[in-house]
Amino acid sequence: MDNVFSNAQRAEVLTQALPYIRKYNGKIVVVKYGGNAMINEQLKQQVMEDIVLLWLIGVKVVLVHGGGPEISEMMSKLGKKPEFVDGLRVTDKETVDIVQMILAGKMNKTLVNLLEMKGGKAMGISGMDGRLIEAKMKDERLGYVGKIVDVNIRPIQDLLEKGYIPVVSTLGCDREGNAYNINGDTAAAYIAGALEAENLFMMTDIAGVLRDKDDPSTLIPKMTVSDAARLKEEGVVSGGMIPKVDCCVEAIHKGVKKVIIMDGRISHSILMELLTDEGAGTMVVGG
Amino acid sequence: MDNVFSNAQRAEVLTQALPYIRKYNGKIVVVKYGGNAMINEQLKQQVMEDIVLLWLIGVKVVLVHGGGPEISEMMSKLGKKPEFVDGLRVTDKETVDIVQMILAGKMNKTLVNLLEMKGGKAMGISGMDGRLIEAKMKDERLGYVGKIVDVNIRPIQDLLEKGYIPVVSTLGCDREGNAYNINGDTAAAYIAGALEAENLFMMTDIAGVLRDKDDPSTLIPKMTVSDAARLKEEGVVSGGMIPKVDCCVEAIHKGVKKVIIMDGRISHSILMELLTDEGAGTMVVGG
Amino acid sequence: MDNVFSNAQRAEVLTQALPYIRKYNGKIVVVKYGGNAMINEQLKQQVMEDIVLLWLIGVKVVLVHGGGPEISEMMSKLGKKPEFVDGLRVTDKETVDIVQMILAGKMNKTLVNLLEMKGGKAMGISGMDGRLIEAKMKDERLGYVGKIVDVNIRPIQDLLEKGYIPVVSTLGCDREGNAYNINGDTAAAYIAGALEAENLFMMTDIAGVLRDKDDPSTLIPKMTVSDAARLKEEGVVSGGMIPKVDCCVEAIHKGVKKVIIMDGRISHSILMELLTDEGAGTMVVGG
Amino acid sequence: MDNVFSNAQRAEVLTQALPYIRKYNGKIVVVKYGGNAMINEQLKQQVMEDIVLLWLIGVKVVLVHGGGPEISEMMSKLGKKPEFVDGLRVTDKETVDIVQMILAGKMNKTLVNLLEMKGGKAMGISGMDGRLIEAKMKDERLGYVGKIVDVNIRPIQDLLEKGYIPVVSTLGCDREGNAYNINGDTAAAYIAGALEAENLFMMTDIAGVLRDKDDPSTLIPKMTVSDAARLKEEGVVSGGMIPKVDCCVEAIHKGVKKVIIMDGRISHSILMELLTDEGAGTMVVGG
Amino acid sequence: MDNVFSNAQRAEVLTQALPYIRKYNGKIVVVKYGGNAMINEQLKQQVMEDIVLLWLIGVKVVLVHGGGPEISEMMSKLGKKPEFVDGLRVTDKETVDIVQMILAGKMNKTLVNLLEMKGGKAMGISGMDGRLIEAKMKDERLGYVGKIVDVNIRPIQDLLEKGYIPVVSTLGCDREGNAYNINGDTAAAYIAGALEAENLFMMTDIAGVLRDKDDPSTLIPKMTVSDAARLKEEGVVSGGMIPKVDCCVEAIHKGVKKVIIMDGRISHSILMELLTDEGAGTMVVGG
Amino acid sequence: MDNVFSNAQRAEVLTQALPYIRKYNGKIVVVKYGGNAMINEQLKQQVMEDIVLLWLIGVKVVLVHGGGPEISEMMSKLGKKPEFVDGLRVTDKETVDIVQMILAGKMNKTLVNLLEMKGGKAMGISGMDGRLIEAKMKDERLGYVGKIVDVNIRPIQDLLEKGYIPVVSTLGCDREGNAYNINGDTAAAYIAGALEAENLFMMTDIAGVLRDKDDPSTLIPKMTVSDAARLKEEGVVSGGMIPKVDCCVEAIHKGVKKVIIMDGRISHSILMELLTDEGAGTMVVGG
Repeated sequence: MDNVFSNAQRAEVLTQALPYIRKYNGKIVVVKYGGNAMINEQLKQQVMEDIVLLWLIGVKVVLVHGGGPEISEMMSKLGKKPEFVDGLRVTDKETVDIVQMILAGKMNKTLVNLLEMKGGKAMGISGMDGRLIEAKMKDERLGYVGKIVDVNIRPIQDLLEKGYIPVVSTLGCDREGNAYNINGDTAAAYIAGALEAENLFMMTDIAGVLRDKDDPSTLIPKMTVSDAARLKEEGVVSGGMIPKVDCCVEAIHKGVKKVIIMDGRISHSILMELLTDEGAGTMVVGG
Repeated sequence: MDNVFSNAQRAEVLTQALPYIRKYNGKIVVVKYGGNAMINEQLKQQVMEDIVLLWLIGVKVVLVHGGGPEISEMMSKLGKKPEFVDGLRVTDKETVDIVQMILAGKMNKTLVNLLEMKGGKAMGISGMDGRLIEAKMKDERLGYVGKIVDVNIRPIQDLLEKGYIPVVSTLGCDREGNAYNINGDTAAAYIAGALEAENLFMMTDIAGVLRDKDDPSTLIPKMTVSDAARLKEEGVVSGGMIPKVDCCVEAIHKGVKKVIIMDGRISHSILMELLTDEGAGTMVVGG
Repeated sequence: MDNVFSNAQRAEVLTQALPYIRKYNGKIVVVKYGGNAMINEQLKQQVMEDIVLLWLIGVKVVLVHGGGPEISEMMSKLGKKPEFVDGLRVTDKETVDIVQMILAGKMNKTLVNLLEMKGGKAMGISGMDGRLIEAKMKDERLGYVGKIVDVNIRPIQDLLEKGYIPVVSTLGCDREGNAYNINGDTAAAYIAGALEAENLFMMTDIAGVLRDKDDPSTLIPKMTVSDAARLKEEGVVSGGMIPKVDCCVEAIHKGVKKVIIMDGRISHSILMELLTDEGAGTMVVGG
Repeated sequence: MDNVFSNAQRAEVLTQALPYIRKYNGKIVVVKYGGNAMINEQLKQQVMEDIVLLWLIGVKVVLVHGGGPEISEMMSKLGKKPEFVDGLRVTDKETVDIVQMILAGKMNKTLVNLLEMKGGKAMGISGMDGRLIEAKMKDERLGYVGKIVDVNIRPIQDLLEKGYIPVVSTLGCDREGNAYNINGDTAAAYIAGALEAENLFMMTDIAGVLRDKDDPSTLIPKMTVSDAARLKEEGVVSGGMIPKVDCCVEAIHKGVKKVIIMDGRISHSILMELLTDEGAGTMVVGG
Repeated sequence: MDNVFSNAQRAEVLTQALPYIRKYNGKIVVVKYGGNAMINEQLKQQVMEDIVLLWLIGVKVVLVHGGGPEISEMMSKLGKKPEFVDGLRVTDKETVDIVQMILAGKMNKTLVNLLEMKGGKAMGISGMDGRLIEAKMKDERLGYVGKIVDVNIRPIQDLLEKGYIPVVSTLGCDREGNAYNINGDTAAAYIAGALEAENLFMMTDIAGVLRDKDDPSTLIPKMTVSDAARLKEEGVVSGGMIPKVDCCVEAIHKGVKKVIIMDGRISHSILMELLTDEGAGTMVVGG
Repeated sequence: MDNVFSNAQRAEVLTQALPYIRKYNGKIVVVKYGGNAMINEQLKQQVMEDIVLLWLIGVKVVLVHGGGPEISEMMSKLGKKPEFVDGLRVTDKETVDIVQMILAGKMNKTLVNLLEMKGGKAMGISGMDGRLIEAKMKDERLGYVGKIVDVNIRPIQDLLEKGYIPVVSTLGCDREGNAYNINGDTAAAYIAGALEAENLFMMTDIAGVLRDKDDPSTLIPKMTVSDAARLKEEGVVSGGMIPKVDCCVEAIHKGVKKVIIMDGRISHSILMELLTDEGAGTMVVGG
């Protein structure tokens, strides 16, 4: 593709980006990244490029990542057999240890490394560092699945003040020294809310919220908080989309200006959201 | 041109600019702009866009502007007849007043206004503000044509620290309250030197230094300080190009890393210089 | 006069100024200077001395200057014939250009230069720098006569924080890149208000508000905002004094503690106002 | 033990610690902790208490931890068969992934959590965050075993400035995105040197350097850098003690004032080192 | 006593102090010291050690001292005969001079010196420095006995910000240049209140508030503000204890969290208060 | 005298002071005041006014005061009989206590109070606060007469940074807790030197250095360090003037730009020194 553009064209494109760059300068943007959206290696490279570019033009980017298929993979490698209670997976001590290793050890440092390679200055922490995410058990039968009790946002602010891109693994901790597995979307919503972020990008591997989930042409490009409630009632938002939309609404309630359920399968979808007023995916706003 | 690029292509171009953006982040770049290079309105708009874009991505840009045809125009409007001594124009008190009005009143504020419209935060000063440029008479017979005695760079640093794009009119002052007309290229070289700028862009309306001044294909893309001396000796650098090349050499001596005699007739030539390692015009470096 | 005082007397005078100096230390004082008050060269020198002295003893002084006879003079030199609509002068594009040159080019830099010569550290800007004064057309038929839409006081505060005496030309700008001629008294009132200045000195070439405008002994030394309304009703404040008194009242409403319509024909009238509780001219206060 | 001391005795002990507390106030102390020294759970608790206490009394403590038996354990759990080249273990890509998970995921966060529980404010990073430890392959046949190329100490200083106890996993990174396993003692020596630390505590599970390694009564309590060279020559320092002593010497060369090979099997050995002039283990100093 | 404890025991005691140290880190604690509590030299040394230890572990300690027997002693040495009005001692000009000398000259500097010797960084001021304590005559017949009109806490905050232990002599001043003798307990209550101190320690030479003042076993360890009112009514708090308890209540009303009437005859009573939840003396709290 | 000057004359005098005010703005000036120069009450008021005026116009003034006749007075009141060794007065423990009381208690606070009344913000400390002046015995037979070992200037800088006029009593301290009486002139020279002060004013009750000590018309208005040596040799500088001139020379050696032995019997002599280039007394400069 490099050869396609002349330098003059490149300059033209850059200057056309000017008003958008200006708009986000100095603002806080949280990117939730993880799960299936993270599998394609080329897309991962592009998400990292987008984040470093935002950071270079003065946006304060926070990358929140949840787990992914690597946790299940490691569990099966270690011969962990899944236990279930009422159909929900039990996270025992050994499992939360694996989650901790994969999230804070494997994925966090790999993302930090990618950002550094693209030219960013990143520091990777978890919800256990500086007691960022205080949690408690959601349901005793499920073990170490955490419900967020409090978000102490100071550690992220300290890293932003020092000029880093904070990369956050969604683990929680309590006063007794336990670690908890925290749902990535929920953690991102709480963190973006506590930071009063301008935007929260929820990177997914789907097109966004669809009226007919088999027809991408029925994408709902924008919804308000009250639309969201109605769409849930009508059954348009259903299944796995319900908790995701709930997180978006929660983030808006906590002070985020705009949440985007973003189709991460599209190249440079974050930058594209900044370049046009349409954007890829479904935007959730207040009202 | 807007319709030519898809959003995906735009994103692609932006991310390809990443390493260059990173390189200039936090650096000081001085742009000398004026004279004939300033006449074409569309090019002027593009230079302003380039400057604001640089500013937004964290480059500390200083815009130094000299006069232009508008001074002569105003003089003739006011019925001022040019006087000459040994073929050089005499700048009497009334003339330096006109220079002051055109530079600090007309051009400076117009440039500030353009930068603000493009989204920048600019503040326009002259060499008289904060005693930035202290000068004395070069030759008594020529009147208020100033020779730079000292550059007190503090006012520009103060504006940079407060986040402005300083726009500087090249007037000088002395302790007796006289104003002086200062050569724009010289002032830019002194200012860039005092700031230990990364780059000094000398915007012109020519292709650069040519071996054969009638053949643009003989452009010398890069020369060292010692090349410059040799080329002057050989007569390749001659006529009006001599003082310009001298200014470049002076700037390098004073601590600027790279000076570019830039072909301002090319759209977005400043950005293009940042996007490729070739660049338009002639680059002067130490050595 | 130098020889009149012994050094002991000088010391005595200085120490007697102590409580007054103490009172204004760290406070913001705006001086509106322009028009006829600016003609007498010796008085101009004294006003500059007063401002630098205030600055040296820790007062944060802002000098706002309007135009003067020099604008009309330049217009007639350039052969501009005044046009009128309903008896009001039309300010076309060419005229506002002349205003810009005279205010921001000629007068602003000359005042900056004088302050520097007296030992001050000054920086001259206009209402176009940092979008200080945003304006729009007052009346389309009058052309570029501006009505203030917003005052963004940050540029002045930035200069004060960096220790400069800001010198402000009363030009306005809009988002389309137009320049406007702004009434000096109004601009000073808005700026002083936005700064919550302690004092606003309106330098004039009259004695102040007089009960009988031909009898200086009928000077009204002090009036409240409600006095002002009553005096306008009674016709005591009339003619050209009406907009001036309106500006004073506006400044008080916007948060200035005290406005003084000051007789600028008296030597060092600003310092004298600081040395006695009477002062020269008419003081306007709240209530 | 709680019941043994009266409150008066406790106060007495505290005030006797005063001169020592004063001495270390504001100083940087690096604690290298890991391997066998980390196995005993009660001792681990005590080391954490010591670190938090130092932090509370104003010492800037940095905790550097290497791996331990947990890496081997995980490798065997995952069915990784050790490969050897010339008797040295090969660290292939998969192995360095495991190291990363155990160090940065499991151990780092567990240590952070313990410090937080004891009342400290800790943040856990690795040599990959902020490019703290740049490394390259030591020997291609050994795979991802890293040799330190450069230590960029800024990330640790940033965390100290923000009031955290930095907890550092000894991983390295290169510009191609590879992770490396770095020897813990070496990393600690480099980090302590770059910080010009007052003390570097090398926590071990041995008594220190012994003249006769089977007789604890032959402990060498203190040695200079030149003693160390001589003792190596004499064969007193031999086997696994050689690289450890080399690290101590390296740290001294890089600017650390005092390195202590500390017997971590003794309760609160770090605090005890601060309370007496003898201390447990072998101290290495310059000279 | 030194020989009684092993180093291991010392370490144990220190780590047991950890949660208490953590609790007071960064908090403001005011110690009122003076009068009879100051006579015993060994106890004085211990109080100083306690203060320096608190300061070293990050507590912001302010030492307020009143006069003591040394004032009376100096008065009798100088042959001053006490005068009385209605049974109260008259403080004439000469007497307040003596108070000033003893408090600000003798005692203040001696305390500063002791704190420095113990390793602290102390600066001694009086209520006259920076107009800390503005006062007026309580009763004209009593002369220069001051009633506090205002406390300007800035000087103490300035010293705390610069890292000093402020040592404050309880003198007052008025706008006419008079010095006043201020009751030490009252001054301490006002200062602790203005600082919103965590704790105010009132060092005394009694056991605390006793139900039966001849029976130390009847100590009231803790009382609320409303308890205090009731105990005064019941006559349990009587005589010289009334003004002291009133000061404690005043301090609580002004924002201090906890006031302790402390038995200064016990070694290291301040540190002991920090080590146990009981403490020596009577604690007064809100409610 | 108030009625003598018109307001216009006052303004004239103030503006004539402008260049002098400008020169001293931001500079450090040390005033040594004490002894006989302090006796006249009206002159004392004027010295205080001068200091506050300097402080208000941005000079950083430090007031160093020695003792005066009040020490001897108090000693005789307390029935202390002077003891002598080789003709020099012995300062026993009791005497140094009296010195401490008079200097740090009586005089220091009285000067602070006067400065505050004149509108200044003052804080009074001694050489014992923050270990400002470390001293040792000069001669064991003389007792607590101190020789300066070290000046730790930080406490004075801390007060200047916080905007206070530091008022310093010339006491010294050692590590054993002893107080010392320090010669005022010496202390002032050391302090001014450590501060690299612009000026050191040595206030005296004589005309300055006279060629013929009975003839004021023989005043030496200015001398260099080498002049001073010569004048001592020649016997012109003799008796009590020797140590004073030695102090001046010492101050110059330590980095003070200009020392003035000033005739404190003249009203506002400090301000007068600032207003003219002659000044009252003898100026000592380098060379």
